[in-house]
Amino acid sequence: MPDVVFTVDQARSMRDQKAPGHNRWHPDVPPAITVRPGQEIRVECREWTDGQIGDNDSANDVRDVDLSVAHMLSGPIAVEGAEPGDLLIVDILDLGPVPHGPNEPARGPAPGQGWGYTGIFAKHNGGGFLTDRFPDAYKAIWDFHGQQATSRHIPGVRFTGITHPGLFGTAPSADLLARWNARERALIATDPDRVPPLALPPLAEGVLGGSLTGEGLAAVGRDGARTVPPRENGGNHDIKNFTRGARVFYPVHVPGALLSGGDLHFSQGDGEITFCGAIEMGGFIDMHVDLIKGGMAKYGVTTNPIFMPGNVEPRYTEFVSFIGISVDHDTDTNLYNDATVAYRNACLNAVEYLKTFGYSGEQAYLLLGAAPIEGRVSGVVDIPNACCSLYLPTAIFDFDIRPTAEGPRRADRGTCAVSS
Amino acid sequence: MPDVVFTVDQARSMRDQKAPGHNRWHPDVPPAITVRPGQEIRVECREWTDGQIGDNDSANDVRDVDLSVAHMLSGPIAVEGAEPGDLLIVDILDLGPVPHGPNEPARGPAPGQGWGYTGIFAKHNGGGFLTDRFPDAYKAIWDFHGQQATSRHIPGVRFTGITHPGLFGTAPSADLLARWNARERALIATDPDRVPPLALPPLAEGVLGGSLTGEGLAAVGRDGARTVPPRENGGNHDIKNFTRGARVFYPVHVPGALLSGGDLHFSQGDGEITFCGAIEMGGFIDMHVDLIKGGMAKYGVTTNPIFMPGNVEPRYTEFVSFIGISVDHDTDTNLYNDATVAYRNACLNAVEYLKTFGYSGEQAYLLLGAAPIEGRVSGVVDIPNACCSLYLPTAIFDFDIRPTAEGPRRADRGTCAVSS
Amino acid sequence: MPDVVFTVDQARSMRDQKAPGHNRWHPDVPPAITVRPGQEIRVECREWTDGQIGDNDSANDVRDVDLSVAHMLSGPIAVEGAEPGDLLIVDILDLGPVPHGPNEPARGPAPGQGWGYTGIFAKHNGGGFLTDRFPDAYKAIWDFHGQQATSRHIPGVRFTGITHPGLFGTAPSADLLARWNARERALIATDPDRVPPLALPPLAEGVLGGSLTGEGLAAVGRDGARTVPPRENGGNHDIKNFTRGARVFYPVHVPGALLSGGDLHFSQGDGEITFCGAIEMGGFIDMHVDLIKGGMAKYGVTTNPIFMPGNVEPRYTEFVSFIGISVDHDTDTNLYNDATVAYRNACLNAVEYLKTFGYSGEQAYLLLGAAPIEGRVSGVVDIPNACCSLYLPTAIFDFDIRPTAEGPRRADRGTCAVSS
Amino acid sequence: MPDVVFTVDQARSMRDQKAPGHNRWHPDVPPAITVRPGQEIRVECREWTDGQIGDNDSANDVRDVDLSVAHMLSGPIAVEGAEPGDLLIVDILDLGPVPHGPNEPARGPAPGQGWGYTGIFAKHNGGGFLTDRFPDAYKAIWDFHGQQATSRHIPGVRFTGITHPGLFGTAPSADLLARWNARERALIATDPDRVPPLALPPLAEGVLGGSLTGEGLAAVGRDGARTVPPRENGGNHDIKNFTRGARVFYPVHVPGALLSGGDLHFSQGDGEITFCGAIEMGGFIDMHVDLIKGGMAKYGVTTNPIFMPGNVEPRYTEFVSFIGISVDHDTDTNLYNDATVAYRNACLNAVEYLKTFGYSGEQAYLLLGAAPIEGRVSGVVDIPNACCSLYLPTAIFDFDIRPTAEGPRRADRGTCAVSS
Repeated sequence: MPDVVFTVDQARSMRDQKAPGHNRWHPDVPPAITVRPGQEIRVECREWTDGQIGDNDSANDVRDVDLSVAHMLSGPIAVEGAEPGDLLIVDILDLGPVPHGPNEPARGPAPGQGWGYTGIFAKHNGGGFLTDRFPDAYKAIWDFHGQQATSRHIPGVRFTGITHPGLFGTAPSADLLARWNARERALIATDPDRVPPLALPPLAEGVLGGSLTGEGLAAVGRDGARTVPPRENGGNHDIKNFTRGARVFYPVHVPGALLSGGDLHFSQGDGEITFCGAIEMGGFIDMHVDLIKGGMAKYGVTTNPIFMPGNVEPRYTEFVSFIGISVDHDTDTNLYNDATVAYRNACLNAVEYLKTFGYSGEQAYLLLGAAPIEGRVSGVVDIPNACCSLYLPTAIFDFDIRPTAEGPRRADRGTCAVSS
Repeated sequence: MPDVVFTVDQARSMRDQKAPGHNRWHPDVPPAITVRPGQEIRVECREWTDGQIGDNDSANDVRDVDLSVAHMLSGPIAVEGAEPGDLLIVDILDLGPVPHGPNEPARGPAPGQGWGYTGIFAKHNGGGFLTDRFPDAYKAIWDFHGQQATSRHIPGVRFTGITHPGLFGTAPSADLLARWNARERALIATDPDRVPPLALPPLAEGVLGGSLTGEGLAAVGRDGARTVPPRENGGNHDIKNFTRGARVFYPVHVPGALLSGGDLHFSQGDGEITFCGAIEMGGFIDMHVDLIKGGMAKYGVTTNPIFMPGNVEPRYTEFVSFIGISVDHDTDTNLYNDATVAYRNACLNAVEYLKTFGYSGEQAYLLLGAAPIEGRVSGVVDIPNACCSLYLPTAIFDFDIRPTAEGPRRADRGTCAVSS
Repeated sequence: MPDVVFTVDQARSMRDQKAPGHNRWHPDVPPAITVRPGQEIRVECREWTDGQIGDNDSANDVRDVDLSVAHMLSGPIAVEGAEPGDLLIVDILDLGPVPHGPNEPARGPAPGQGWGYTGIFAKHNGGGFLTDRFPDAYKAIWDFHGQQATSRHIPGVRFTGITHPGLFGTAPSADLLARWNARERALIATDPDRVPPLALPPLAEGVLGGSLTGEGLAAVGRDGARTVPPRENGGNHDIKNFTRGARVFYPVHVPGALLSGGDLHFSQGDGEITFCGAIEMGGFIDMHVDLIKGGMAKYGVTTNPIFMPGNVEPRYTEFVSFIGISVDHDTDTNLYNDATVAYRNACLNAVEYLKTFGYSGEQAYLLLGAAPIEGRVSGVVDIPNACCSLYLPTAIFDFDIRPTAEGPRRADRGTCAVSS
Repeated sequence: MPDVVFTVDQARSMRDQKAPGHNRWHPDVPPAITVRPGQEIRVECREWTDGQIGDNDSANDVRDVDLSVAHMLSGPIAVEGAEPGDLLIVDILDLGPVPHGPNEPARGPAPGQGWGYTGIFAKHNGGGFLTDRFPDAYKAIWDFHGQQATSRHIPGVRFTGITHPGLFGTAPSADLLARWNARERALIATDPDRVPPLALPPLAEGVLGGSLTGEGLAAVGRDGARTVPPRENGGNHDIKNFTRGARVFYPVHVPGALLSGGDLHFSQGDGEITFCGAIEMGGFIDMHVDLIKGGMAKYGVTTNPIFMPGNVEPRYTEFVSFIGISVDHDTDTNLYNDATVAYRNACLNAVEYLKTFGYSGEQAYLLLGAAPIEGRVSGVVDIPNACCSLYLPTAIFDFDIRPTAEGPRRADRGTCAVSS
């Protein structure tokens, strides 16, 4: 059984915990705890927005969410003996929503207390992968039934979640952080007024830096990297296969490695296409940590982590699959080998398909973000058209979604939460 | 047992068959045969270059390959009653390399006769996904052992192929063909001298149009779409999961549907990254054909085919997985949410990793093109960094490729075929 | 989140709980609680012997275990509206060892508090499947690491448990109970002094009947069926695939169905061959209950439950497999189509194989009971030899156990807990 | 590509081939060919009864089949350097029904030429696992569609076959053969007039011994072991998982090993419960052979072969599963830990279940013999009741067979072939 090294009280903000976490990447955020290689640890986590989203039928909270506080991370956790150039081995032993005691109510107000949510972010607030088609805010609440989820906002589906942390990573060195800031600022500069923006620069507003205050905290606000993208330290991978039994090898950039994370997902489809596309929750994660000394050089790891996925994913064997190619079909314009456009088209094709069964486009979009769909880079050499595919498991529906000569069984499929 | 409706003699060019196939998409290529909905058929196929590549240890043939003749397709096959707007159901019942009789030699000169090949195309001849790193031509010959493949050019690996056709599709209507030509010419016009080119325009040289001759054939050469990219008719998807047991629903654009295909692959990794990255072969494919009348409207299919993958893929449960993000790490330049760059980085990370075990970069590249690796679109909303991942099954190696504290077991891993 | 309808304090005997459970099948054990069809419930469970086995290195506790108190079941749970002839649907949503709070020590004294055990029962105390070869008591302690287990008594293995309840069932009617007693007494009468016995008759000693006392309890002691075998009510199936996501359809024999159970297993191999062969633990199980009215007649269910296994088992894809046939090889005597003997031989063949790697026979036997091995009835018509097979996943070992030309890698593999 | 080392002409009896095979186990049957360790070979096979069963709608041929000629095996194949005590490694590379050329009709008269069959043997002619319930002869013809099968006699099902050889083995030594004859004769002597018999003694009638004639052949008829049961040489395992990619390690008992086999199955359920329960066919098998010198002692192999199953089985993830315990429910008699009775009850429970959907008992029985069902030894220690389970994949049916509140969708399901 793991040692509980980072706790959170789900009734309070991350800011108000006895030992608060942080929400920016910066080498100077001090470790909350130090652990040993070989130790098994439990880390408790807040939901990524620190609890701004409620268990209700309005998407106004998604529309108005304050992203300056995201992601609320637990940590940093220092690992004894870790030095730059090592690989930090993290075995994901277990994770899940907030445990509850026998005398507690079955459902609580914080995401992870018996429920979670998926949100489509409004275009003015970051948007999602299909934001040009779906510029407004929408939401679905999911109820947890052991390892399975259902939603009153998307009736007719029930699936086993591939539960995973969206975000874990090590602290960047000062040099690495400076490179991130430089390259992301250069990108923003190419179109600084774009909505949504091309990237997110450091932001003093909303910053949290563990026990830091005063100038220490101000420095983190000034230079700390935002937590949205994945980078050389790991970070917000949103790889659904970081699930139970997975082993991740993180590059170490600072002494002690300084592992932090959170953004737990009850389930997510490849791509997390609605941005807040997973089923978001607070909860716990149990990990075993160890080191490969000098592992980066030994294994040629110069940029991203390596990982081995777990072997307890739900296995689905029948899929209806959708294909997209790198053509803008609205304007009949050809892109060159663009896998992003190809996957977007695969997603749009899946949305159109699901609409023939009676779902709204928003419901379909929310479902593709949250359910265990697989997104594949199928072909990236057959110029000019990259080809991506999206695998939708048929078993998650309680009606037959396979194409038949009779045509789709259209029905009233309710409605998701909308913004007013 | 299926009716053999299209035969090829592997000792001759597709051009010299009794009923030759074709190598351009054009509605006027006349059907070679007409079949009924519900019929089971066998189609024999030539390897996609029509046999230009040999079972030897030089990559000169890959370097010098004449692409004007590719892909050599079997068909067109007209389906009774098919009309524009229908979905053509194709069940892939079986496929494989060239069968051989008891009195024939165990190995023949044509790809598919006991062997196949993977090629890295030279940059001047189209290149592949990593052509900036690997601009020259390389080759690996694979030996078939039932459903498994080994290569004298990449020792230490043995895997079960996910056998599939790289390319099947229906004929475009004249209108659709005109739109393809317009949009691809527009793309080429943005950088007409690029090496490799952005796309391939129609080409009279090397054209084959079934039984067409004279002006009929000339028209196909003038306007027929090249077969390299996937498009709204299906085409060169190179989706490895179109394997035994798969069902594909092709949009029908012309009366009779006019199904054609070939480009059989003994195995391929997602992305087919070396361009000629699959294990290429001639052989046979058995299919069952049927129709969903008006299926395109019924199911909201406006662009690409839908498919259901088969359930007899080899299943691997342990992987070493590599991550890439949309950053050009050589120049520390950030791209915006570019899944193509992210997948390229995942591939490069895998290549670097394999090199620490003693493989050359070219061997690693060839292996990633041919082995049953999975390429996933993991995150496409965490701006600015798209995140893709590549899953390499550990069981295909006869040594342990997992990262350990001891470091990689480096050994002499031989060499692939090179060009002189 | 489920309602907690049955709690246990792991620091006390089942007898001393506020609402104790029971350890005999009898229709007159009063329900501890009544639930509704459609309700999600949590049931907490004691380990089956009520905590007689300790986290230590001696098997004396296994040798001396008092079986009169087994199995300690949680329940009965009455389901509103259930009537004889219905099928009671039980969805297994989740289950696991004893949860622990952040301020509790990582490991506790009761099985399920961070650890579990596997025991080989002594022949004089019931024995196991190979009791003629292994007549004494042995034990292995397993440590839990999230979903995985390791043992200091069987080094070199680590596996993901297929966690499941060994025993759940509905109450028998008085008639059904009378039939059980009659047929089991008749069997015992054929060899009443056999060691171990052929079956276990009712036993007043150690009886527990929920809230019953006095004559009510005495009647349960007199006639209540022992809980060891599976019967028409379900009972001690020890089917490892009753895991998360499984759905079981239990025959209902009395009004309210009266569901009881426990005997939670962290993991178990098919057959549970050491008798106490699973990794035994206390813990919790979350279930959803519902009814199919008149389901027994609708679906032709006259004897045993039906079930649908879950889809989140760990999936292993490589196995070394052992075969047994119905021959007594010690005496070269042929049995007729005896699958029990065939499976015993498959087990013995696996034990002999593992011994060549350095394990003791007892360690091998304990491992085959606890690890996720599959036992198959392969052939039962090829007279006179039934044929069974046992699939041992290779991935659970941290060394290569496949047969090779070099022979097995023999090493010092430690020792299991023995009795003094 | 393998060398074709044993050919058969499917238009002739095994007896009339240029190099005939054999149908008894005896060390003196001379090898038909000698191969080298490391060689890949193709062996062609006749269907096991030598073609007595026809592609028609009467089961009279099953009722009247002459079993004195079974099983018609291809071989023996001598392996250079094999000596008693070695393990013979056989990799199953590929296998399938009879290949057909482009100019041949799609369907031929021999089993394996586009079709196969499953038979329920009549009780007077050997019977099957449920012969007391189904004493007469029945038959189902299966049509092959690539890797899938359907039957006009069991409409509503379609499944992917786990194709495998029912029977391969090495020759016994004279000593081993004598032990077999002794122990089987002893068993027969316990009830010599039983119908069906307890075992099959040597039989001169119908004997075939390769090239042997005269006294040599007479000796094989006198002492040669019948091929029905599996024994220490391998033999008629009927283990469905000896499929593509499997590796089998056979004990070697005579110089050269003398490998023989056949009895190819397009598909089979665990247990092969109708006796002729697989989908029987002629065809081909491709194998790679190698040796582990002294492997029997190295790995503690004293009786049966070891094997590693392949990784290309069709994977089904949803099952309706049936349980049986060792009770004779007709007479309410308890057997002691009898897995054979338990599995029989699981089979009977499955038959009753399928009847509620409209199938006849015979259709259900035939289906359970032929489809890829899994039979598990679930519990063999919970005295007195052994517990076995049978997993029926839901995806093989074209209607929903899961239990629901509405009850089974009963329909007219046609009829199987019966005897007159």
